[in-house]
Amino acid sequence: MDKKTIIQTQSDLVADWDTLFRVFIRPEGQASRATLIKYMDRILYGLNDFLKKHVGITEAKSLKDLSEKFTGTIISDNPEKKLADVITCLIEDIAPHAVNVASPYFIGHMTSAIPFFMVHLKTIVTALNQNVVKLETSKIVSVIEKQVIAKIHRMIYNQDDAFYQTHVQNTDTTLGVFVEGGTTANLSALWAARNAVFAPKTGFAGIESEGIAAAFRAYDVDRCVVLVSRLGHYSLRKAAGILGIGNQNVIVLDTDKNNRVDITKLKQIISRIGKENPKTCILAIVGIAGATETGTIDPLEEMAEICAEHHIHFHVDAAWGGPTLFSKQYKHLLNGIHLADSVTIDGHKQFYMPMSCGMLYLKDPKKLDVIAYYAHYVNRWGSVDLGIKTLPGSREANSLILDCALKIMGANGYALLIDHGIETAAAFAREINKRDSFQLMTPPTLNILTYRLCPAAIQNKLNTADKTQRQGICEKLNVINQRLQRIQREAGSSFVSRTTLLRDNNPDDSIVVLRTVIMNPMTTISILNEILDEQEEIFETQLKALL
Amino acid sequence: MDKKTIIQTQSDLVADWDTLFRVFIRPEGQASRATLIKYMDRILYGLNDFLKKHVGITEAKSLKDLSEKFTGTIISDNPEKKLADVITCLIEDIAPHAVNVASPYFIGHMTSAIPFFMVHLKTIVTALNQNVVKLETSKIVSVIEKQVIAKIHRMIYNQDDAFYQTHVQNTDTTLGVFVEGGTTANLSALWAARNAVFAPKTGFAGIESEGIAAAFRAYDVDRCVVLVSRLGHYSLRKAAGILGIGNQNVIVLDTDKNNRVDITKLKQIISRIGKENPKTCILAIVGIAGATETGTIDPLEEMAEICAEHHIHFHVDAAWGGPTLFSKQYKHLLNGIHLADSVTIDGHKQFYMPMSCGMLYLKDPKKLDVIAYYAHYVNRWGSVDLGIKTLPGSREANSLILDCALKIMGANGYALLIDHGIETAAAFAREINKRDSFQLMTPPTLNILTYRLCPAAIQNKLNTADKTQRQGICEKLNVINQRLQRIQREAGSSFVSRTTLLRDNNPDDSIVVLRTVIMNPMTTISILNEILDEQEEIFETQLKALL
Repeated sequence: MDKKTIIQTQSDLVADWDTLFRVFIRPEGQASRATLIKYMDRILYGLNDFLKKHVGITEAKSLKDLSEKFTGTIISDNPEKKLADVITCLIEDIAPHAVNVASPYFIGHMTSAIPFFMVHLKTIVTALNQNVVKLETSKIVSVIEKQVIAKIHRMIYNQDDAFYQTHVQNTDTTLGVFVEGGTTANLSALWAARNAVFAPKTGFAGIESEGIAAAFRAYDVDRCVVLVSRLGHYSLRKAAGILGIGNQNVIVLDTDKNNRVDITKLKQIISRIGKENPKTCILAIVGIAGATETGTIDPLEEMAEICAEHHIHFHVDAAWGGPTLFSKQYKHLLNGIHLADSVTIDGHKQFYMPMSCGMLYLKDPKKLDVIAYYAHYVNRWGSVDLGIKTLPGSREANSLILDCALKIMGANGYALLIDHGIETAAAFAREINKRDSFQLMTPPTLNILTYRLCPAAIQNKLNTADKTQRQGICEKLNVINQRLQRIQREAGSSFVSRTTLLRDNNPDDSIVVLRTVIMNPMTTISILNEILDEQEEIFETQLKALL
Repeated sequence: MDKKTIIQTQSDLVADWDTLFRVFIRPEGQASRATLIKYMDRILYGLNDFLKKHVGITEAKSLKDLSEKFTGTIISDNPEKKLADVITCLIEDIAPHAVNVASPYFIGHMTSAIPFFMVHLKTIVTALNQNVVKLETSKIVSVIEKQVIAKIHRMIYNQDDAFYQTHVQNTDTTLGVFVEGGTTANLSALWAARNAVFAPKTGFAGIESEGIAAAFRAYDVDRCVVLVSRLGHYSLRKAAGILGIGNQNVIVLDTDKNNRVDITKLKQIISRIGKENPKTCILAIVGIAGATETGTIDPLEEMAEICAEHHIHFHVDAAWGGPTLFSKQYKHLLNGIHLADSVTIDGHKQFYMPMSCGMLYLKDPKKLDVIAYYAHYVNRWGSVDLGIKTLPGSREANSLILDCALKIMGANGYALLIDHGIETAAAFAREINKRDSFQLMTPPTLNILTYRLCPAAIQNKLNTADKTQRQGICEKLNVINQRLQRIQREAGSSFVSRTTLLRDNNPDDSIVVLRTVIMNPMTTISILNEILDEQEEIFETQLKALL
């Protein structure tokens, strides 16, 4: 065999026009059709069966072992695999080492099972491949996006019929925008708030045009701040950093014993800034509706009042909690959200949409005018292109998924999910309180709670200990809970996350806690009990000696 | 019939736990399985058949007519539709009014047909629903993402084996990041450049922490600028606006007769800033590799040299042109790209991935350290979470699609697409030159060109006309080309876009041109001739009188 032949046998796959046509033109024959559908069957069922056989969260292989298998960095000239082999490889080799976020035992993060139909909807969106940045690549999809935005806006702001008739398809106004996720939504909200404060005026073309330094000079300001509770999402700091405000100017507000922003302290800080730093501008105050770590909700009504009084932009980060509005029983928890100037809600969280979809809603349909951008070839002045007032340019039509999901689920369907989460979390909290080994750290308002392993005897000791003793015990507990979480995660059959909270807002008193998010409707109290059992078992057999 | 019964008959769909379980748990019986697969068949084939029957770009219905049908803003309490009906509605009622971007007659924008297998790959990504922000919700997918990023990095920067062995799975370094699209990629590049210039130093915690005004004081700077040709993408202005630099500080550079940045003028402007405005800091110079409007490529090597000499961040926006590197025949067009500090490439453009996927690549694997963010519950210090150094938080695993696509297509497969586009565009340019009715405005470097309807007689007239006569003729031509594009678009069987270019960089001499992007491998020269025929026909029958 000469060298040439050897090379040919090494790869029987060749990139040529025939192959290319095959992948761009849908195969026409019945046999080809059957093949392509068989692939979908394998994706929908094969993948699922495989994950079910491996009931755990993930296979036990370590990250280091996995990494060592993925180090080649040369793109092969000829195709390496056919679609069928790629699918097989994804199902058999990749999926078992991915994370089975759909498992009811996966209760550590805000990523979970999604309804089966979501996969179908995403497939349609992909097959249509519309680009919602402009009408010329989306047409009716832009129209549907405006409608579904108006629907969610109405759920939040509940304006009258006339308002929605005016704005639902109004190409000059914007009730909301779809973005990649909560981070971009929060960034967009602060961007709009920043530009509104430093608007164009005589001799100044506006902050968007001239930049921050010029804006500060024009308005005689030397610092811009954003106020939010210490439970605010880290994307707010990131947004302040990106926007040129500086992330140290996100001022962290203390929380009360219910993990809600302390209103007295909020008032104090505003008044102190006014007196001591008259050149400091408060750009926005952010209320949280479903804190990432504790699920708690700030007193939105009172915050809105304060903002109104001081003419400060009030942003509500309801990335997590927004869909609570579906629940007739619990929507009162978000009272005051309709007073927000802007509201972030994530689609891939409690709308149970696939990754990744965020949204920003605006009380004032003209609010986003201050962030509009135009170009000669798209998004022209006077055009109806939705990309004019969004941070992203090209983007997929996730709005179509939300629109269909609302029709398939109905508000009541979503309400069932919300109610299940809140009520299961409450039952879980009772269970934690019942057990001697655990201490409930933040009781659930919504469907998130934190707790830690802390035997009753130790809890009693802590109550009577002096400061030094306390500190010693707490450090041990922190180590134990940190290890406990890791051991359970690595065992691979269930997953809770962990975070660090402060006791009494004291930065020197940080507590490692276990964090659970109950959003999977298949997560029952008996599964939660199994998870607690496993934790007790891990503690007894592996960690007790550390106390 | 009493009232209650009436209400019940109005809607036979009820949101209850049974329904909810059905949508979360995959149906188990053979019959249900067949049903779900049948839905996929309808999505893959029914949608396609329907679009084929309606060969045009879109149905003729006006936006106004469409909008009037989508004005309801109340979310129904009970489900409105079953999945089967939703799919039928999407295929029969929605798809015909969407834009058939897969048509070979759709040559107006950078959105086009995607290979059939991309739909399967996206379906897998959706079914797995991994969240790549953190390892705990993605595991192996984060590992694969690092590998595929290293592959593309190698295609751009071509470092040696040792370099890639060091970095491919290194959790401390970052060769690139996946983001939503080119806009976010460009924003991320300028964000990193900004933070590197205004780094922390004694008495200053860095621009990300303290903000721009403090940074300017610390570094004795009063203005920050970004330099880019007038053909730069509008996302650069948007990025400068967001970052607090001010979009007027994106300084537009004149282009030469080939629509490439004028190097002499670039040098002049740098030297002038140095002499006249020593407190102005040049944050970055941006080279374009595939201008949105003209497809042209800046002289990257010379720009890189200038940047190196002046220690300025060199960013290349190769959102469009990046994959030209696959083509052995044409990759030389991007010579110098490996000298860029950062490079933007879009996945949903010439990687033919579904909406929406952008990427940013970095020469220096530590470059993104200046934009890192941490949180207690994810992205902890020392963790390997990919979300630490990305603008977005939660995001879907588009990297998995790119990784599989590279294996299925091979570099040669992509090269065929690139070569086809470039060669078909060249043939199209020859055809335009041959015809008396048209004038080629920007000859193609890659697969994008612009031209306009301008009869030979008028072209001759323009050559001899005085300034006033010229202006009069040009205004008429602009109106004609504007209408021509609209009439053809509204007729609905083919689509070119339009934009406005400047003659000789003169803002008073703007020319409306037709713009075509040849990326669909099914777009042949005979289709392009049909499109020219239709334009001639429209001109003859509807627009000639305007001349």
